[in-house]
Parts: sequence; structure tokens; C-alpha cells
Amino acid sequence: MIHTYETDGAAIYAQSFAMIRAEADLVRFAPDEEPIAVRMIHAAGMVGLEQHIRMTPGFAEAARTALAAGAPILCDAHMVSEGVTRPRLPRDNRVICTLRDPAVPDLAREMSNTRSAAALELWRPHLAGALVAIGNAPTALFHLLNMLQDPACPRPAAIIGCPVGFVGARESKDALWAAPPAPCCIVEGRLGGSAITVAAINAIASRAE
Amino acid sequence: MIHTYETDGAAIYAQSFAMIRAEADLVRFAPDEEPIAVRMIHAAGMVGLEQHIRMTPGFAEAARTALAAGAPILCDAHMVSEGVTRPRLPRDNRVICTLRDPAVPDLAREMSNTRSAAALELWRPHLAGALVAIGNAPTALFHLLNMLQDPACPRPAAIIGCPVGFVGARESKDALWAAPPAPCCIVEGRLGGSAITVAAINAIASRAE
Repeated sequence: MIHTYETDGAAIYAQSFAMIRAEADLVRFAPDEEPIAVRMIHAAGMVGLEQHIRMTPGFAEAARTALAAGAPILCDAHMVSEGVTRPRLPRDNRVICTLRDPAVPDLAREMSNTRSAAALELWRPHLAGALVAIGNAPTALFHLLNMLQDPACPRPAAIIGCPVGFVGARESKDALWAAPPAPCCIVEGRLGGSAITVAAINAIASRAE
Repeated sequence: MIHTYETDGAAIYAQSFAMIRAEADLVRFAPDEEPIAVRMIHAAGMVGLEQHIRMTPGFAEAARTALAAGAPILCDAHMVSEGVTRPRLPRDNRVICTLRDPAVPDLAREMSNTRSAAALELWRPHLAGALVAIGNAPTALFHLLNMLQDPACPRPAAIIGCPVGFVGARESKDALWAAPPAPCCIVEGRLGGSAITVAAINAIASRAE
């Protein structure tokens, strides 16, 4: 038996977003935050995620303004950088992931830290005004926060801090939320990950649904 | 204040997996299935996911045997193919994603289907004995099932069917589970996605934790 199913990508998106808006509790999101939350829920396949999404006032505006000005997007993992839908980017913005840079393994050993954290040291030339997207490693988010303790470290325009998991994920996001060095968006607790992070980037990049 | 946190990647993995094994209900998984389920929970950051994970008898064995024999891994999305940890692969197996092949947009128009589904037509030369991993698009899983209705279509060794979302995800996975054309693993319902799919591949590729 040949299966029949919806094959129109635009219709699938429209129907998915309508289901999310019917089911999810989105009232506390401002109009410029709501499409970001909707797309994050979509990527997770999970109504209820919205209860864990937090954005500082001005996050959506700061992130959109940065991309409109041509800022790069700095990603902690290739699953994040690969997921960004390039045609949605307003200025053909650079999407940078330094995790596989040949300098990273030695750097990680010197720092006694993970490669995910060490890779952020290579962000420094790109960090001023950038959109930072951490969707995998709690150690990367912790290291970013430590880098930004130095007033000489360039400031990103906005931070998506959504590492996932059981060790350090909750703690690193709590630390970001308690003292944000830039406007930020987090998913509280263990949930997060590359797909949710990519969804936030893609929603910020374009208002098209 | 400089944050202190666990920076040893191996310790983070070990502690994470121990937490999952303490919290999750894993008794119904066979010994060769359990590490796959644990890694999927890890990627999702969600104890409770195990209630939605289903594997046909022989799935874990078939998938591991295929990779040990050098079979390629066919992925529906670059977020999946990019997430596979290459050093875990037993035979430096090829990881193939055809989504950005230049033939795909025209093919999708001819087929009146999504690019994710059309890209699977380019899998045919690689499909015999392969490990298939669908972690994003329900249309890709539906199209795979339709391709395999043709007895002349080469058979994969095993199928990870974990598309995510609100339209077609549940239905495509139910269709796979109701009549599996090969040993398969699914996450029932809306949950799924690239990270969970990658986790299953990485667990199958190596027993190392």
C-alpha cells in the first residue's frame, strides 16, 4: 500500500505552526519573541517547551539588529552551524564553528578543558557584535561566561544559550541568566540542544514562516 | 566571579550516563539495546524519552553488523550526518547526505514532494545493506516506505526512523512500525530529531561510552 501524505513543505510548516499556536501557552511572549518560541517548540516537537524558554528584554531586537547589520553567527557545534538555513540570513552572514580547527585539540589540552570550550578561544576575532549560539556543550557556555569576565574581551550582541544534558547544562544556563553579559535566550534545565538552537537562529534571521 | 565546572569530557559522559541509568526506566531494553536508548535520552536531555523508544527484535544486531561490515550511513539531513562521531565508526564508514545534491530541487518539483523526500532517490546506489537514519523529515520516511514497496528497490540493513514534529512525524513512524521493511528503531509520536538520531548512530557505531 502506497502511503499518501502532505508533500508541500510550505503547507507542512503552516499547519505545524498553527497547531503549536493552538496548543502552546505563548501569552507571556512579546510579539517579537513569539515566533522564536514557536520555532523552538517546532524543532523540539514538544508543546510545553515554552515553559522553559526565557528571553531577556531586548534579546529578540538585539539579535535581529545584529544579523541585519551583517554580524556573524558563532556556533559551538557543527550540528548547529549546519542547521542554519542560509537563504533566511539577511546579509549572507558568516556562520562560524571553530570546533574542528586544527589548533583546538592542543588548546584543549593546555586549558585542561573540553574541545568545545577551547574552540571558543578562536572566536575572539569575530566576537564583537556577533550572535553567539551555544546548543550543545555546557562547558562552552561556562567558558564563554568566564571569557566575558574580562572587560577586554569583545562583547557579542546577543547569546542563545541552550546547551543540553545532565551535567552542567542547567548550571551553565542558570549562570548566564543570573548575570547576562549580553541579551540572551535560554531553555532552562536539561532541555536544549542543537535543533532548538538552530530554530531560534532561523526565527531571528527572518520573520518569514 | 570565574565559574568552576567539570571540564573533563570523559567524566561528563560517565556522570551523565550514570544519572540516566539511575533515573530512567530501562528494564524492557535488551542488553544490546540499552546503550542505544541511554544515548538517545542523553541527546534529548530528557528522562522519559525511553517510554517512546521502540526497536524491533534484531534491530541493534542488524545495525551493528552492517556498520562492522563497512555499510554506509544514509542521513536525511546534514544536521544528522554532521553529528556522527567519525572516530567511533568501525570501518571509517561513509556518511552520506544527498540533500544538497544539485539534482534535488528539480527532482522535488518533478515529484511534487519536498527536497528531503526527493533526496532519497539519490540513495538508491547506496541503499543495499546500508544503515538508514531519518532524523528530520517525515516526508523522507514516508517516501522511503513507498520506495521499499517496490521489490526491486535495494533493502537497507536497518532503519532509524526518528523524524520530529507536528505534521506527519507520528504518522510516518506509525507506518514504519506497523510494517517494517527492515529492522527498525523509532521514537513514537512527535518527539525525535537529529540529535536523538545521531545518538542512536553513535551508540550503534561503538560500545565505548
